[in-house]
Amino acid sequence: MPSALISNQRLAQQIDFIIEIDRLKQVVRRTLITGGSRRENSAEHSWHLAMMAMVLSEHADVPVNVGHVIRMVLIHDIVEIDAGDTFFYDGAGMLDKAEREQRAADRLFGLLPADQAAEMRALWDEFEAHESAEACFALALDRLMPLLHNYLSDGYTWHENGIRPEQVTVQNNTRIAGGSAALAAFADRVVAEAVSLGYFPAATGASAPHA
Amino acid sequence: MPSALISNQRLAQQIDFIIEIDRLKQVVRRTLITGGSRRENSAEHSWHLAMMAMVLSEHADVPVNVGHVIRMVLIHDIVEIDAGDTFFYDGAGMLDKAEREQRAADRLFGLLPADQAAEMRALWDEFEAHESAEACFALALDRLMPLLHNYLSDGYTWHENGIRPEQVTVQNNTRIAGGSAALAAFADRVVAEAVSLGYFPAATGASAPHA
Repeated sequence: MPSALISNQRLAQQIDFIIEIDRLKQVVRRTLITGGSRRENSAEHSWHLAMMAMVLSEHADVPVNVGHVIRMVLIHDIVEIDAGDTFFYDGAGMLDKAEREQRAADRLFGLLPADQAAEMRALWDEFEAHESAEACFALALDRLMPLLHNYLSDGYTWHENGIRPEQVTVQNNTRIAGGSAALAAFADRVVAEAVSLGYFPAATGASAPHA
Repeated sequence: MPSALISNQRLAQQIDFIIEIDRLKQVVRRTLITGGSRRENSAEHSWHLAMMAMVLSEHADVPVNVGHVIRMVLIHDIVEIDAGDTFFYDGAGMLDKAEREQRAADRLFGLLPADQAAEMRALWDEFEAHESAEACFALALDRLMPLLHNYLSDGYTWHENGIRPEQVTVQNNTRIAGGSAALAAFADRVVAEAVSLGYFPAATGASAPHA
């Protein structure tokens, strides 16, 4: 590793961390990038959220520290390097997600010098707690973008995973509403339009005839 | 486009911009991601630089506003959506790079509401001018990471493009030195080690015997 060339222990740890997190580029999400040519990875997704924070923060319900939101979304998925990406609508996967991600946070942020490790961990814990104004807005962005990606790919992921519009409205859009009423109203219109365009799979189950 | 569902013209412009810049994920650079499985794209590269800004800013020669550096590296490559990625050592491509990128900046940032377009354009102009402390440090990060990627891929891009260690030292590492003496010293050690490990192609031309 290049850090073996460094006598300054602190810089060596920082370089090790920078190189290790390159692996986030290989964590693949369910959503397709626009154009639909391939699935998105979590590193480019994190960049996209940071750009959204720069552009959309005026729509937060309460004023947010934009720089803090940007830092939070930049680091929010780093744990996926060890824990993998858990699909938002995967009930079973969501059950042990927290435990897997806690272990990942210990190892990955622990590569940094202690003061920076603590700072990153606090930022990630804040995001996961979904309590501060910045965390609520960061979560809203994290739920709005996949909605747009799914809409722009004619509901590819919704069809692939049998997702119903009610699931999106209840599970996804309420989290957007936790950070921004304006963005949540837009998200609800996107879902309604997606329904009318046939971007969701047809309903099945008890209420469907002969099913 | 989803923005057609929005009556608020300002939000509609912002959403159009957010969707348009998704295309940065399809701009492919010369460098390989760690592991060497594929080339890196400019969106995930921008995320990586923002993480470097968070972690390495204490090594800037003069104190920098870290939040400003983060914003600058997040947007620095967006012009490549129209202008493409120009290889750093491509002399011909570098000649008209500025003109191509100016046109791209006009169109892409121009998708935003006027106040945000001006803000983004000022940030990009600042990066391109390489004068402010933040721009010099951002450029240092932008030159350090490809060096590490090339080192970690046993000089893949150097071999592919016939790059000499002197070119890296003179053209690349002096730009790192413009922002951080500590990171430049590290970069010079990486190049020296790469030479000793055979990560550069063998010298050819007038000075080589029988060539």
